Amino acid sequence: MSTLYSQKVDWQRVATDLAPIECIADRALVRQKSRDFFWYSPVLNERLKHVSADLVVCLTDEQEVIRVLAYCHAHRIPVTPRGGGTGNYGQAMPLHGGVVLDLSGLNKFLGLRDGVARVQAGLKLADLEAVSLPQGWELRFHPSTRRTATIGGFIAGGSGGVGSIQFGGLRARGNVRALRLVTMESTPRVLELRDDEVMPAVHAYGTNGIITELEIPLARSWPWREAVVSFADIAAATAFGHALGEADGIVKKLVAVCDAATLKYFTPLVPHLPAGRAAALCLIADPSWEAFTALAADMGGTIAFEREAGGEADAIPPLYEFTWNHTTLWALKADRSITYLQCLFGGPDYVEKIARTVAQFGDETPMHLEFSRVNGRVAAFGLQLVRYTNEKRLYEIIGWLEANGCPVADPHTYILEDGGMKVVDAAQLAFKRQADPLGLLNPGKMKAWEG
Amino acid sequence: MSTLYSQKVDWQRVATDLAPIECIADRALVRQKSRDFFWYSPVLNERLKHVSADLVVCLTDEQEVIRVLAYCHAHRIPVTPRGGGTGNYGQAMPLHGGVVLDLSGLNKFLGLRDGVARVQAGLKLADLEAVSLPQGWELRFHPSTRRTATIGGFIAGGSGGVGSIQFGGLRARGNVRALRLVTMESTPRVLELRDDEVMPAVHAYGTNGIITELEIPLARSWPWREAVVSFADIAAATAFGHALGEADGIVKKLVAVCDAATLKYFTPLVPHLPAGRAAALCLIADPSWEAFTALAADMGGTIAFEREAGGEADAIPPLYEFTWNHTTLWALKADRSITYLQCLFGGPDYVEKIARTVAQFGDETPMHLEFSRVNGRVAAFGLQLVRYTNEKRLYEIIGWLEANGCPVADPHTYILEDGGMKVVDAAQLAFKRQADPLGLLNPGKMKAWEG
Repeated sequence: MSTLYSQKVDWQRVATDLAPIECIADRALVRQKSRDFFWYSPVLNERLKHVSADLVVCLTDEQEVIRVLAYCHAHRIPVTPRGGGTGNYGQAMPLHGGVVLDLSGLNKFLGLRDGVARVQAGLKLADLEAVSLPQGWELRFHPSTRRTATIGGFIAGGSGGVGSIQFGGLRARGNVRALRLVTMESTPRVLELRDDEVMPAVHAYGTNGIITELEIPLARSWPWREAVVSFADIAAATAFGHALGEADGIVKKLVAVCDAATLKYFTPLVPHLPAGRAAALCLIADPSWEAFTALAADMGGTIAFEREAGGEADAIPPLYEFTWNHTTLWALKADRSITYLQCLFGGPDYVEKIARTVAQFGDETPMHLEFSRVNGRVAAFGLQLVRYTNEKRLYEIIGWLEANGCPVADPHTYILEDGGMKVVDAAQLAFKRQADPLGLLNPGKMKAWEG
Repeated sequence: MSTLYSQKVDWQRVATDLAPIECIADRALVRQKSRDFFWYSPVLNERLKHVSADLVVCLTDEQEVIRVLAYCHAHRIPVTPRGGGTGNYGQAMPLHGGVVLDLSGLNKFLGLRDGVARVQAGLKLADLEAVSLPQGWELRFHPSTRRTATIGGFIAGGSGGVGSIQFGGLRARGNVRALRLVTMESTPRVLELRDDEVMPAVHAYGTNGIITELEIPLARSWPWREAVVSFADIAAATAFGHALGEADGIVKKLVAVCDAATLKYFTPLVPHLPAGRAAALCLIADPSWEAFTALAADMGGTIAFEREAGGEADAIPPLYEFTWNHTTLWALKADRSITYLQCLFGGPDYVEKIARTVAQFGDETPMHLEFSRVNGRVAAFGLQLVRYTNEKRLYEIIGWLEANGCPVADPHTYILEDGGMKVVDAAQLAFKRQADPLGLLNPGKMKAWEG
């Protein structure tokens, strides 16, 4: 632990000083609010399982954020922001203890104008859409944790999700319009970043400012029909995912492809799935349904499950809760030894890259693909499961993927850069120098800062 | 003229036989209703300027279509269908005379369900949207003749247009759901083609059946903002068109790029355009406006003209009426010697292909590009103007383009195949054998049939 931070803090005193702001000191509750889904990774699990804040501070407005940051700055207390706690890489875990800022109380929908939602950071994605959908607008894309994640947490710790096959991810220009954030200084400033200025604070884990409000461009909402299409094998399902991705006349929000070894963990869906076959999980706009089924039939697929838009809730959760990072969750429920990867199958030969990976690792990495738009082209993110043996083998697999042209966004590190582009983001670092000169925000995450 | 068709028809008698169906025999009016915008092409102008039907028959429902086709079949009278008459290749021109079927009276909007419009073939595109827009749905794409073209004419004679940058064209699976058409037989049948079955009758010029009704999947409507962005030269504007096309987070409906030589013909826009520069004409969804202007600024563009969604009508027509085939119309208004081309700049090197074409022909072919999705990728259709000298030189230019990897959909031919894929469409031909065994529908257009 760095000596920068105060070593002897009277946390009872902090709570008293911050009153009437709600503080949680109860050890069990603090520990619970210091964790996310880092345990998807056995590596992170080992490294982060003992991490805990000293105090959780629950905020309800920006004035409280300013007050708490000024206080913590004065007392050299590290501060780590938290939304829904649905991250997978310890994004919201306080490596150096201190305060966890629970922002879920900043949950107001401030307005919707010209298709852009202005919201507080702690608003849950589902609650955002509860307001926008009746007005004909929906999130362009959302993580599979739509029902529990917050918008601020998604922007600060996520990258893409259900809808990225249409709109790309958070890094695509135009998907985040503005961020309002509070700096970590003796007198915290409130900054409003707009358009390209937002980029240094997107997917920065809250290391360079505490986001309090956002402007998020939405999409016109469609009635989305759910479908699982069964295919003989992963090659056939991948070919379908690719064709569907490039079918300009078929409007879709989700094209996830899993092989048989992955699908068998989807307990509620299993009764609908022919055994031993691969499948594509899709969200298709109502007016594209016939074209979708025709394409599926042409490519040897059979519809194994379908549910109409707004269909009755039943024993089967929304289909998107079997995709993106939820896929791994289903596997983990059945087998605690499983983990996963995140790589990009991109470029003109991306379908062959997938085939080579399947041939190389077989059942050691049950395949899971999320088709997406990346810089205007269809590509697939590989979120393949991994039957974990040890860290050395895990990094052998990662090494093979990278050597074979499939960049890995390592989900087994809490280091911002190692989880993403592997290179120092100069703009992100420069912005941290201004917004958090002492390095008190979510310390230990930004490699460029830590040096 | 083929001897198949009756040589001596008493057209007054035909009109009497068909009563109470409205028939037009007035020479001037018949001639007017026998023409489209074929005169964009000096080649077609020479070949088709004397073409005229003998009788125009104005229909208002499908029963009348059946009755007229049965009658014309019995009397071996050629029949050529006509919508708004906005085609450019003589699609609706009766090469062998006979009857022109004016279908503009079949103009009912039959219903809108699950985002799919069921309409009669003669409904104008603007009238279709007048019904669908208040319900939150719009055409996925439309030709620049939106205000006068009919939906049946567009499907039978068009290919793509404003919106193809999102949804591709008519040949992309899913953009036409169903066609109802009447066959040319002694007892005409009414067929309903669905999904992939529609393809033989899409862009078939009405040679293999008379379309009476259609089901058209729509798109959720957005508020579209108009913008003209000025760039130093065609290379910069092209680079912008490409970047905007691939910008997944910026929602757009139109990305047209013109060089200075083309822009100078846009009389009402000229006062807004800095002289001697190229420009991009764009339709951008409201929530993407800021990202769009940021991208434009980054790439050296300046907004020369903008108009908000639903902005007041003024002296400047809708921006889309300067794009697609309207671009050529503006040039023709100023200089009757101009004509145009239609080629595809596609493939990974399509931007370089454009640059090579500009370098090769310079001011002989003032550049006009329409960025579009083609099989899931961004590409550009070249609708460059041509300073016409003679047919030989025109085909030299076409030959150079094709030799340089830019397939040309020749707009100087009325032959279906020569205007498109250059190869016999076996499905189209097979369908004609069933739907028009005597070859009486729009004769002379389908090369595969004529042999």
